[in-house]
Amino acid sequence: MKNLLSLAFLTLVAAASADTPMQRVRQFRQTHEAALLAEFEQLVAIPNVAADTAGLRRTAQFIQGMMRRRGIAAELLAAPTPGVPPVVFGEVRVPGATRTVIFYAHYDGQPVNPAQWREGLQPFRPQLASGPLDRGGQLVAAPVAGQPLSPDWRLYARSASDDKAGVMAILSGYEALTASKLRPKVNVKFFFEGEEERGSPHLAEILARHKARLASDVWVICDGPVHQSGRKQVVFGARGDVNMRLHVYGPRRPLHSGHYGNWAPNPALALTRLLASMEDSTGRVRVAGFYDDVTPLSSAEKAALAQVPNLDETIRQELGFARAYGPGQSLVELLNQPSLNINGMQSANVGAQAANVIPTTASAVLDLRLVPGNDAQRQVQKVVRHIEAQGFHVLSAEPTDAERARYPLLVRVQAEPGYNAQRTRLDLPIARQIIAAVQTTVAEPVVVLPTMGGSLPLYVFEQQLQAQTITVPVANYDNNQHAENENIRLGNLWEGLETMAAIMLLK
Amino acid sequence: MKNLLSLAFLTLVAAASADTPMQRVRQFRQTHEAALLAEFEQLVAIPNVAADTAGLRRTAQFIQGMMRRRGIAAELLAAPTPGVPPVVFGEVRVPGATRTVIFYAHYDGQPVNPAQWREGLQPFRPQLASGPLDRGGQLVAAPVAGQPLSPDWRLYARSASDDKAGVMAILSGYEALTASKLRPKVNVKFFFEGEEERGSPHLAEILARHKARLASDVWVICDGPVHQSGRKQVVFGARGDVNMRLHVYGPRRPLHSGHYGNWAPNPALALTRLLASMEDSTGRVRVAGFYDDVTPLSSAEKAALAQVPNLDETIRQELGFARAYGPGQSLVELLNQPSLNINGMQSANVGAQAANVIPTTASAVLDLRLVPGNDAQRQVQKVVRHIEAQGFHVLSAEPTDAERARYPLLVRVQAEPGYNAQRTRLDLPIARQIIAAVQTTVAEPVVVLPTMGGSLPLYVFEQQLQAQTITVPVANYDNNQHAENENIRLGNLWEGLETMAAIMLLK
Repeated sequence: MKNLLSLAFLTLVAAASADTPMQRVRQFRQTHEAALLAEFEQLVAIPNVAADTAGLRRTAQFIQGMMRRRGIAAELLAAPTPGVPPVVFGEVRVPGATRTVIFYAHYDGQPVNPAQWREGLQPFRPQLASGPLDRGGQLVAAPVAGQPLSPDWRLYARSASDDKAGVMAILSGYEALTASKLRPKVNVKFFFEGEEERGSPHLAEILARHKARLASDVWVICDGPVHQSGRKQVVFGARGDVNMRLHVYGPRRPLHSGHYGNWAPNPALALTRLLASMEDSTGRVRVAGFYDDVTPLSSAEKAALAQVPNLDETIRQELGFARAYGPGQSLVELLNQPSLNINGMQSANVGAQAANVIPTTASAVLDLRLVPGNDAQRQVQKVVRHIEAQGFHVLSAEPTDAERARYPLLVRVQAEPGYNAQRTRLDLPIARQIIAAVQTTVAEPVVVLPTMGGSLPLYVFEQQLQAQTITVPVANYDNNQHAENENIRLGNLWEGLETMAAIMLLK
Repeated sequence: MKNLLSLAFLTLVAAASADTPMQRVRQFRQTHEAALLAEFEQLVAIPNVAADTAGLRRTAQFIQGMMRRRGIAAELLAAPTPGVPPVVFGEVRVPGATRTVIFYAHYDGQPVNPAQWREGLQPFRPQLASGPLDRGGQLVAAPVAGQPLSPDWRLYARSASDDKAGVMAILSGYEALTASKLRPKVNVKFFFEGEEERGSPHLAEILARHKARLASDVWVICDGPVHQSGRKQVVFGARGDVNMRLHVYGPRRPLHSGHYGNWAPNPALALTRLLASMEDSTGRVRVAGFYDDVTPLSSAEKAALAQVPNLDETIRQELGFARAYGPGQSLVELLNQPSLNINGMQSANVGAQAANVIPTTASAVLDLRLVPGNDAQRQVQKVVRHIEAQGFHVLSAEPTDAERARYPLLVRVQAEPGYNAQRTRLDLPIARQIIAAVQTTVAEPVVVLPTMGGSLPLYVFEQQLQAQTITVPVANYDNNQHAENENIRLGNLWEGLETMAAIMLLK
C-alpha cells in the first residue's frame, strides 16, 4: 500500500508540470478524484429500476443538475407517449467546429433483488471495497479528505457500471477539458436515456420527435465493459435482444405430493422437459432454423476478430467452470451467433420454504440475443414453433377451463418487442479517427471488436436518424452487470473520463 | 341457505331426544360448535413451522392446556436429543377396560411462504370462508353468538387440516363422550408429535425412551384426508418419503447474458436437462431400478382397492388438467408405486426481478415416495447413480476450486434420512373392529384403503414398539395441505370428532 501511495504521489508531481492536453486532463482528474467520487456516489444512490418512476425522474433531474454545474444547458426531452422517463439532453456548440459528436449513456438500471446482494451491500447504498469482494476484497470506510483512492478499489451499487458509469465518464470527461482550459474540437451533444434496460421501447419515437436537434456525425455509445484484458476497446455493433416469458400450467391448486404424486401432472417436469429440448449440452440451440438468417462477417471484421486477444482460458478459470459452450470456438466468435439463455426459472419453492407439493405453475424467462440478419419477432416465432412441436398448446393469456380440459401441455408465452442487432462498418473514416483518439490515452493497442455480446438499441439510431454508432465502453469486465453485487473499478471510471475527453478532442 | 338452517334446526331437535351414544355425541357437538371452533382458531393461530422453535413449544403447551381442560393428565415428553419439540402425552385409564388405543396426531406444520397466500389470508391468522375460495367461496366475518355454522364453511390457516384438525378431532371426540356422561370402552392414550413435517427424525428415540408408557393394542393415526367422495376411510398404511435437494453450479458469479451468453455454461439448462432425464412425459420414472424392490399387494389388498370408488375423472376435471400420469392406471393403483416429484425449483429470478443474466446456481427439491419393499436410502442411491450417469460429478458440499476446474457438470446432492413405507394387514381383528366402529357414525360404506398416498412415519412404530397402526383421517381432500391457502371444512372437523369418539367406544 505504501508503494502504491508513493507512486500516486509521484504521478501527481509529474502531472503538475505536464502540458499535453491528455496530461492536463489526467492532472485535473487526479486532483479531483474525491469530489468526482462523492458526486458519483450521490448519482448511484438514486433508485433507477424500471418500476420506480419517481426514482427515474429524480435520477434524470440529478443528471440535469450535474450538467448545469458543468455549464451545459441541459433539458429533459419528453417522449410523445406520456409517463416515459425523459431523455436528459444537452448541447455545446464549439466555434469553428465542423463536426458533431453525440454521446449516449443510459441512466436506468436492471431490476434488483436486494436479498441476493452480499451481506453489507445494498443496491442503492454505494459501498467502497478494496477489491472484488468475491476474490479477497474487503469493505472500506469512506475515504477521509486528502486520502488517495486506489484505482483497484470498487464501488458497489446498482448501475455503478451499467450505465451510470457511462454518464459519469462523459460528463467528467467534458469537465476535465473545460476545467483545464481546453475546448472540445467538435460540437458535443449529450443524450442520456432512461429505458435502455427495458429494451428502449420509446427510443424510436423520441428520436423521431427530436430529430433535428439530434443531428450529428456519429453517436458515441458509452456502455458495456472494456476488454477482459483491461485494454480499452472500440466496438462497432451490438447484438439485438428479445425476452420471452414462459408459464407452464399444472393442477389448478397446489396438491400434496404424496396423495397425488404420480397421478397429477407436474408443471415443473413439463417445463424442464421443454427447456431441455431447446439446447444440447454444449449450448447449441436445437430450435429449427435458429442459426439461419445470419449475415456473414466481412473480411475486415474477420481480420479484426483475429486480432482480439484471446483470454478465454483465463476467464474460464476465474469464473470457475471446466468447459465453455461452443466447442472449438472462442468467446468473440460465439458473440457473432444468436443465443438462447435461461435467465431464471421458478416453480413453487426451494430451500427453507420448500414443501412437498405438486406446484400449480412453473415459469422461465428466456433471453434471445440476435445478430445482424436476425429479426427479433421472427426469432421468437421459431421458438414458439419449437414449443408447439414439443406438444404444447401455446396460450397468450391464462388458460380457460376449456383449454385446461383439452390440452395436456399448456404454456403461456409472452414475448417482449425486443430489438435487432446492428453493426457499423469498420472502414468508415470516423471509425478510424475514434480508434486513433482512444489510442492517444493508452500505450497498449486498443481492441477493435465488430460486435459486443451485450445489446444496445443501436439499430434504432440507424433506422430513425440514419446515424452511425460506435460504442466506447468504460466499465471493468468483472462488474456483475445485470446481477447482484454490481460494481465499478475506480480506475475504470478515471480511464473512462480520459477516453471521453480524448474523443471530444477529435480533430 | 334458509333450507340449510331449517335442516340444522330439525337435526338439533331430533338430537335432543336421542339416546344412542353416537346421537349423544352429535348433540354435544351441535350445541358446542361455536366454543369448539373458537378454541380451534386459537390453536391454529400459533405458528408451528419447523424453524420456529418457540412457536412449536407454545403450540405444545396450548395442547397441554386443552387436555387439562378436558380432565386429561397431560405432560410434555422430551426426546433424548435436546431441543426437539416435545411430544404432548396423556393417558386415561378406564376401569374394566382390557385394551388400550393410543391416538396420534402431529402439531407441527409445513413451511409457509405468506406471499403466496391469497389476498385476505395469512397462514397464522385463521379466517372463515363460506366455501373453497378458489371455487366461489367468500370470506365471512366471525359468527356472532348463536349463529349456526354451515358445515361447508372453511377455516383457512396453516395446519387447519394438517394436522391440528387431527389434534382437535381426538380431543373434542373425547370431550364429547365425557361431557355426555359416556365413558370410553378402552383405555385411551394421546400422543401429539411436533416433528412430523420434518420427517420425524427423533420419533424413534422418543418411542424407545418412553416405550413402557406407550404400550397399546393399536395406534390410531389421525392425519390426512378422507376419500375424495367425502366418504370416511380407514387406511392401513402410508408411503415412505425422502427428500433430495439438488444444487447445480455454473459460473462463480452471475454474468451478463449478452457478453457471455452462449459461451459460459448455464446451470439452469444443466438442471433442466438433468430433471428431464428422470421422467418421461407420462410421469414414468426413468431412473434405473426405480420400480424394483416393490412388495406385491396381497389378494385382500387387491380386493379392497377394487372396492374404492373411482372419482379420478371428477377430480381431474376439478383440478383442471387434461391428462393424468400413469396411463390406464387409477390414482389408488398409482399410490402403490414409488414416485419422484419435483417439489420446487429455482434459478435466479422470474417476474419483475428477472434480469438478463447467466445464473450462478440452479436448485431443485425432489420428493421420493416409497412403498413397502423400498428402502429410503437405497432409493436415493438409485437417483444419485442416475445423476452420475448423466455426466454429473456429485458433491456433498460446495465445490472446491479444483472440482470447478475439473468437472463440467457439478451438482451438490443433499438427501434427508427419510423413512420407509408401512402397511398393516387388513385381516387383523382390531382392523375389522375399527372399520366397524367408524361405520357406526355414517350410513355410506366406509372406504378401506391399503395405503394412503401421503407419508407418515408408521414404520417407526412397528420397528420400535412392534405396534400396529391404523390411520383414520378427518380432513377434506381439497384442503391445500402442504401449500398456500390450507383449509379445513368445518363439517369434516365435526365428523372427525364423531369418528374419534366412535373408536373410543370400541368394545
